[in-house]
Amino acid sequence: MKARVTVYPRREILDPQGKAIRGALARIGFAEVHEVRAGKSFELDLGVDDAQRAGDLLAAMCEKLLANTVVEDYEIELLEVRNA
Amino acid sequence: MKARVTVYPRREILDPQGKAIRGALARIGFAEVHEVRAGKSFELDLGVDDAQRAGDLLAAMCEKLLANTVVEDYEIELLEVRNA
Repeated sequence: MKARVTVYPRREILDPQGKAIRGALARIGFAEVHEVRAGKSFELDLGVDDAQRAGDLLAAMCEKLLANTVVEDYEIELLEVRNA
Repeated sequence: MKARVTVYPRREILDPQGKAIRGALARIGFAEVHEVRAGKSFELDLGVDDAQRAGDLLAAMCEKLLANTVVEDYEIELLEVRNA
């Protein structure tokens, strides 16, 4: 099972990296962009085929390592069953 | 229109950050994880409601700023029309 975990700064937390990217985009001509949030994305290949168990494992990985839940939110997406 | 851009190292490029995360997950008990690829995720709020135009703009932003296309691939997802 493949999965994607996306980690973003929490809405109420300032995102200076996103703000800098928005400024850089505006300077090179993309003034249409109102807001950018910059986060991390992890694509994981799990040796687990049960969706429930994969979701539980991924949530545990996020809580323990992938995200800092004091200042970050995470989102888990299950992408595909391996060898399907 | 909101959109998400995901930028990953190209498949043929080594991903030391992903490898380090995989090692760290294994050490804290998540031996099920076969592979991790570590990338960046950008959530953009565009002042553009036409999906075709939004896609074109986002591709141009990726080529010019968000991704280094020599070593990275990008993926664009349109998420929702604003105020819908």
